[in-house]
Amino acid sequence: MIPTATLGRLVTYLRVVAELETEGVLTTSSEAIAGRAHATAFQVRKDLAYCGRLGTRGSGYQVAPLARELRRALGLTRVWHVAIMGVGRLGQALADYPNFDRYDFALRAAYDADPAKVGSTVGPLVVEGLDDLAASVARHALDMAFLTVPAAAAQGAADALVAAGIRGILNFAPTVIEVPAHIRVESVDFLAGLTRLTYYVGNPPAEHDAPS
Amino acid sequence: MIPTATLGRLVTYLRVVAELETEGVLTTSSEAIAGRAHATAFQVRKDLAYCGRLGTRGSGYQVAPLARELRRALGLTRVWHVAIMGVGRLGQALADYPNFDRYDFALRAAYDADPAKVGSTVGPLVVEGLDDLAASVARHALDMAFLTVPAAAAQGAADALVAAGIRGILNFAPTVIEVPAHIRVESVDFLAGLTRLTYYVGNPPAEHDAPS
Repeated sequence: MIPTATLGRLVTYLRVVAELETEGVLTTSSEAIAGRAHATAFQVRKDLAYCGRLGTRGSGYQVAPLARELRRALGLTRVWHVAIMGVGRLGQALADYPNFDRYDFALRAAYDADPAKVGSTVGPLVVEGLDDLAASVARHALDMAFLTVPAAAAQGAADALVAAGIRGILNFAPTVIEVPAHIRVESVDFLAGLTRLTYYVGNPPAEHDAPS
Repeated sequence: MIPTATLGRLVTYLRVVAELETEGVLTTSSEAIAGRAHATAFQVRKDLAYCGRLGTRGSGYQVAPLARELRRALGLTRVWHVAIMGVGRLGQALADYPNFDRYDFALRAAYDADPAKVGSTVGPLVVEGLDDLAASVARHALDMAFLTVPAAAAQGAADALVAAGIRGILNFAPTVIEVPAHIRVESVDFLAGLTRLTYYVGNPPAEHDAPS
């Protein structure tokens, strides 16, 4: 398994390399990737070692094969089907998000417990209710769901998703949810991001700590 | 400096301990915190060592002093003033977020470049334009901003915030932004979270890897 911290950096490198590809760049270097990813060239080379043998000392990386290997290492070799559970403002913002397909994610369904929202349109989707969630999850061949319900509703909604056959949850609700061991949860916790920020803003690095 | 990975876990422990406090629990244990935080008791004890001497072997932790020490370690000893830059759906969702004050964050201002949005109300705030951003940042005594503009507008908006005196940016735009060395940026990148999820869903742990 790739360590979690490395995984996070590989995702960033893929974004950088995808940008380079879009810009028509054919070859790149660990220095160039590091510059855009706010990392060091040493770190980039070390992390990319998880993607197999890539690049030649002195001649850098071919952009297209590097993008391919990063996608392979990250499991982005097929289209993953994603649903939105909870069509509040955050769920709506996610439905409007333009870049899913660039990363081989397909937004396939949106659910809400509120009957008033069922049948309404959000982004490219028609909101469905929760009455026959398992059948809907199977019909859309869903792999994963964004959990964008209020914190108090998060555990119940997660339980419903798991019972319906979802295998991964990206939890936006500000609470820890419990799931069976075979289900994976990742959290998008902006209060945590904000708290990291207060820590760093309150503890600016000394001159000799500054990254080179 | 506390390592970034530890910092993220301390934020989770603070959330757990704050929940315990709300529930009226007076004492707790590394095992109880670990259970709610999805960590191991060993990890919890090791991480909490960054918060100074807390707890006694065999008798656990007093909840209130632990919450206080966690807040102190994370720099949450005063109210931080936060602004929203970009009042699209995501910005609006953040303005409606109920829990800021529990973590000593005060949402003080919202900005948008669109004149049609200026003067409208979002959550508790009236949207301001960018014409005199520095004066507004000073008036609201802003420390940090949520950057919730489209990716193409992110660098320009970040430059404007930095020029106006903001010291930290929580970047929700799916792009890397460049800032001077004394400014801190943390990213809330849900595509990264989604990609971590595909990796883990695509590589389920073997039985002998399962956490105990």
